[in-house]
Amino acid sequence: MDRIRLGHGSGGKLMHQLIAEHLGPAFGIREFGDSAILDMNPKRLAFTTDSYVVSPLFFPGGNIGDLAVYGTVNDLSVAGASPLYLSTGFIIEEGFPVSDLKSIVSSMSNAAATAGVRIVTGDTKVVNKGKGDGIFINTSGIGIVFNGLDISSSRIRKGDKVLISGEIGNHGVAIIAERNGISFDPPVVSDTRPLNSLVRAMIEITKEIHFMRDPTRGGLATTLKEAAKESATCIRIKEGSLPIPQQVKGACDLLGFDPLYVANEGILLAIVASAAAEPLISVMRKHPYGTNAQIIGEVQDSPGGTVLLETAIGGTRMVDMLPGEQLPRIC
Amino acid sequence: MDRIRLGHGSGGKLMHQLIAEHLGPAFGIREFGDSAILDMNPKRLAFTTDSYVVSPLFFPGGNIGDLAVYGTVNDLSVAGASPLYLSTGFIIEEGFPVSDLKSIVSSMSNAAATAGVRIVTGDTKVVNKGKGDGIFINTSGIGIVFNGLDISSSRIRKGDKVLISGEIGNHGVAIIAERNGISFDPPVVSDTRPLNSLVRAMIEITKEIHFMRDPTRGGLATTLKEAAKESATCIRIKEGSLPIPQQVKGACDLLGFDPLYVANEGILLAIVASAAAEPLISVMRKHPYGTNAQIIGEVQDSPGGTVLLETAIGGTRMVDMLPGEQLPRIC
Repeated sequence: MDRIRLGHGSGGKLMHQLIAEHLGPAFGIREFGDSAILDMNPKRLAFTTDSYVVSPLFFPGGNIGDLAVYGTVNDLSVAGASPLYLSTGFIIEEGFPVSDLKSIVSSMSNAAATAGVRIVTGDTKVVNKGKGDGIFINTSGIGIVFNGLDISSSRIRKGDKVLISGEIGNHGVAIIAERNGISFDPPVVSDTRPLNSLVRAMIEITKEIHFMRDPTRGGLATTLKEAAKESATCIRIKEGSLPIPQQVKGACDLLGFDPLYVANEGILLAIVASAAAEPLISVMRKHPYGTNAQIIGEVQDSPGGTVLLETAIGGTRMVDMLPGEQLPRIC
Repeated sequence: MDRIRLGHGSGGKLMHQLIAEHLGPAFGIREFGDSAILDMNPKRLAFTTDSYVVSPLFFPGGNIGDLAVYGTVNDLSVAGASPLYLSTGFIIEEGFPVSDLKSIVSSMSNAAATAGVRIVTGDTKVVNKGKGDGIFINTSGIGIVFNGLDISSSRIRKGDKVLISGEIGNHGVAIIAERNGISFDPPVVSDTRPLNSLVRAMIEITKEIHFMRDPTRGGLATTLKEAAKESATCIRIKEGSLPIPQQVKGACDLLGFDPLYVANEGILLAIVASAAAEPLISVMRKHPYGTNAQIIGEVQDSPGGTVLLETAIGGTRMVDMLPGEQLPRIC
């Protein structure tokens, strides 16, 4: 068997074979009931879902498989939860190479191990050739919310500091470069990675983290605008403090993109009490995924619902959400 | 806006608008963080996922939306859990009519209300025209396992009775008829519906339910074979006791299908202690979704891992899983 057939999505023998040979062993699932039964006794659960339709499926720094695991791990992490269990739902196009499926599943398995989460249940569907695009993956996840933590845009206050965990723009530029056959030297590599250990390190020193999110689709600008809108505050960012790699700057100039709108997959935005900002930055910089952490701005009262960017030459400009599509199918 | 554009999957304004106008109100979600935070204090959770790729999207008795809700509700129910929370992930093809999306979302909202579950988190992706097929929906679900209940194929024992909650074959035949422009009089209608209240009624009178599953893709035959294989028992079924509607029989004869392999979406298979069988049947028959409940067979020791069908004329035949694909994209 080297290509996926419609029968692999049928619920019958071919599907059982696919699960038994490829998916079950990769995820360490031995029983194939339709639900996973989980022993846990939490007070507050976080629950999230994301479908991944990234194109191309393989790109510098990752593939749709680890992206699907880390993306959902990160959504739970920025909700202030410790990610525990993931589900995975595959929609595979008839004719998809099984070797590619194996690589993707193996990446998912490694990514789950790296992040310390377990993939506990799954589903496989197959659609006719020409009715999909290789493979789409949904992952949903459950985590336990850290005690005493309350992450919500409603907690954002005047005076809060805005922190970013590292360089922006790498994921989006890596994808667009791969898609268009552009190469950089050194190459731009996706930042796909799990943020749960970074978040845990931060939470261990303070509960004064008011808001966290990972700026994926729509980029940093869209996430900042969401935060400003939801909290009815003004978020003021210093352009000069934004960690944008030279390669990303160059690529964006070349392609006509604004790095503020380019997707990231391993970057954390945090809005925190002013007194907690410096201690957090110093903890973040000690973590491998936070070495370039920066304070990039602060929260003001007005004009509410806006994001202002102080440019390098001393002006300010209003930052809005991504209006429509910049880079389709980035995740 | 009457058609979905690529920008609706971008994470930006268009997506926010789509969520704010259509998805949020339908599901009663006001905050759009990436994770839902759930207050609960369970001992054992059930967690499940399913992607729905049914074609056509609308069929007699339902559409992909209520199918996606009830399918996941049912997976939790047959795990012996009370379904509570659902996530929903949409993969929409560029150009998809927004009016269809609205119908589907409205069906999901109604289905969630009917089943007594809440859709608490979601995700929307858009793929280029020609890279999808209208809409695919993933739902994942969380439920709390009923105290004292242990549903597992390993509990199936010699002497156990095999129960089915109603007529088989309706969903598959409704789909295939719609797909091929065949009509029946009276029409064959999908049995898409939530099984949680039926399961609750059953559990209230006995914990001696050893195994439950809803025979969807692959049909009753595949589910029986899974149960026999996993428990290394022989499941002996009386063909004459199988509730197969006349319309389904006729359609299957016409189209060359075996109703045993045709998908159901609102039917429950239960394998239960012998003494519990009659009391369960009488409770099931009082429930609107169990009026045609039947004891269809029993469990024997050997030959282990097999399903034997006693035919109407007194012979027996071995029933295997669906070998490959019979009806692609049935759910």
